[in-house]
Amino acid sequence: MTRNELIAEIHKKKSFLCIGLDTDPGKIPQHLLSLDDPVFEFNKQIIDATYDLTIAYKPNLAFYESQGIRGWTSFAKTIAYLRANYPDVFTIADAKRGDIGNTSLQYAKAFLDDADGFGFDAITVAPYMGSDSVTPFLQYPGKWAIVLALTSNKGADDFQLQILNNNEKVFEHVLQLSAGWGNPDNMMYVVGATQAPMLAGIRRIIPNHFILVPGVGAQGGSLAEVVKYGMNHEVGLIVNASRSIIFASKDENFVEKARDAAKEVQQEMQELMNTI
Amino acid sequence: MTRNELIAEIHKKKSFLCIGLDTDPGKIPQHLLSLDDPVFEFNKQIIDATYDLTIAYKPNLAFYESQGIRGWTSFAKTIAYLRANYPDVFTIADAKRGDIGNTSLQYAKAFLDDADGFGFDAITVAPYMGSDSVTPFLQYPGKWAIVLALTSNKGADDFQLQILNNNEKVFEHVLQLSAGWGNPDNMMYVVGATQAPMLAGIRRIIPNHFILVPGVGAQGGSLAEVVKYGMNHEVGLIVNASRSIIFASKDENFVEKARDAAKEVQQEMQELMNTI
Repeated sequence: MTRNELIAEIHKKKSFLCIGLDTDPGKIPQHLLSLDDPVFEFNKQIIDATYDLTIAYKPNLAFYESQGIRGWTSFAKTIAYLRANYPDVFTIADAKRGDIGNTSLQYAKAFLDDADGFGFDAITVAPYMGSDSVTPFLQYPGKWAIVLALTSNKGADDFQLQILNNNEKVFEHVLQLSAGWGNPDNMMYVVGATQAPMLAGIRRIIPNHFILVPGVGAQGGSLAEVVKYGMNHEVGLIVNASRSIIFASKDENFVEKARDAAKEVQQEMQELMNTI
Repeated sequence: MTRNELIAEIHKKKSFLCIGLDTDPGKIPQHLLSLDDPVFEFNKQIIDATYDLTIAYKPNLAFYESQGIRGWTSFAKTIAYLRANYPDVFTIADAKRGDIGNTSLQYAKAFLDDADGFGFDAITVAPYMGSDSVTPFLQYPGKWAIVLALTSNKGADDFQLQILNNNEKVFEHVLQLSAGWGNPDNMMYVVGATQAPMLAGIRRIIPNHFILVPGVGAQGGSLAEVVKYGMNHEVGLIVNASRSIIFASKDENFVEKARDAAKEVQQEMQELMNTI
């Protein structure tokens, strides 16, 4: 999906919500567990109930890999279902991959290639190994590498916020340098919602890139703060919520409760979008 | 596998070789391609031909993920085969994972758990997200997190070699700080063979940790240099070669040629071990 198409979807749906399909089998409603593939069935029902409120879905690979081959099958069925039924939704493989060039190329194929891979629109990428670990993800037209910059967790202090001898923080150097490997049409960045005030400075480095913001909801980040500091004239934000939406209820009413939770976020987004 | 068991294996086999099972289906011998699972069959034959010369095997996940469910099946069969037939061999999932704590926990389960996961001895981990992204991999007794420190690729310059305002390089800060999250019994570090002279300084920071060294062979690193700067009194090194061994021949004789290539490295290792 191109940047213009993504922006059009955001305005059409009056939403920049991404729903994280972090489908931990231990947390899905009891009545689904007797089905053949409870994880896929859960995802399918969540997607069907929320697609008009959200512009993106983001399964985190960890929750599928932890189920072995069975988990990978649920994962493959989920992305196939999205591509077949909701081609206008932006799909993000939250995989945080990255390796030497030769190897990153294999990951890029796995997640982004429409014919030989899962055909996601985007994949999250860890920057520690540098340019040749990231650039293989930029070779697919209309596809995206979403590079970790400043994450929402406590451990962000350990390396990302360390200060270099030119006074830049490490994550600022990541933004500065990596932005030159691609452009705002094939790269985005991850900045955690718990770091919202930092978004002002980040926007000075990357005024035009989309920013994927996890950490609203269960992790405690504030949507209003994220918008205040991070929104640009094209919105430029994809804000993810996972647990607060998909696990809003563990009962048979989980679909309605998930929709209610997504609707609440979408409506707050609609109001905030009116301010630009 | 505990550290003492690993050291005993190294002395028994007079080898600190790890063979990288980076099994690109495009590079395996033609005559295997008609089999039901050519990638697993290739791995099995390579393993059977080399297990007395090597102390570890390291499949890189990218080469399996790029084949979708089929690739994951080959991967699962490979680790199951290793565990069932060669329990004394150290197994490393080269996955370079890392996410917020809640999510890293799922990856740890996937790769390290003997009952609910693949049951590897170790997994490679990317440090960018900090402490809570790494520590979940340290919870399994006898299992290991192998943290990326200084990698063998060109992109290592971009972030790992940047200098902090206290004059430490970023990768030195990674070593210094993360070493406190675990100990030499549950953590190792990745340092690329192309960075061999840096191993002297690295040994001052982590004198006792094992170091996994990729980049000998196809990537051009020198084993003698790695040993000169990186070996400690317990050897303390696991040196990986992938393509130069497993793809030594593309013909029907690939098994013998792989064994010859592994034997050559093992014999060089045996001589170098005599110097400590």
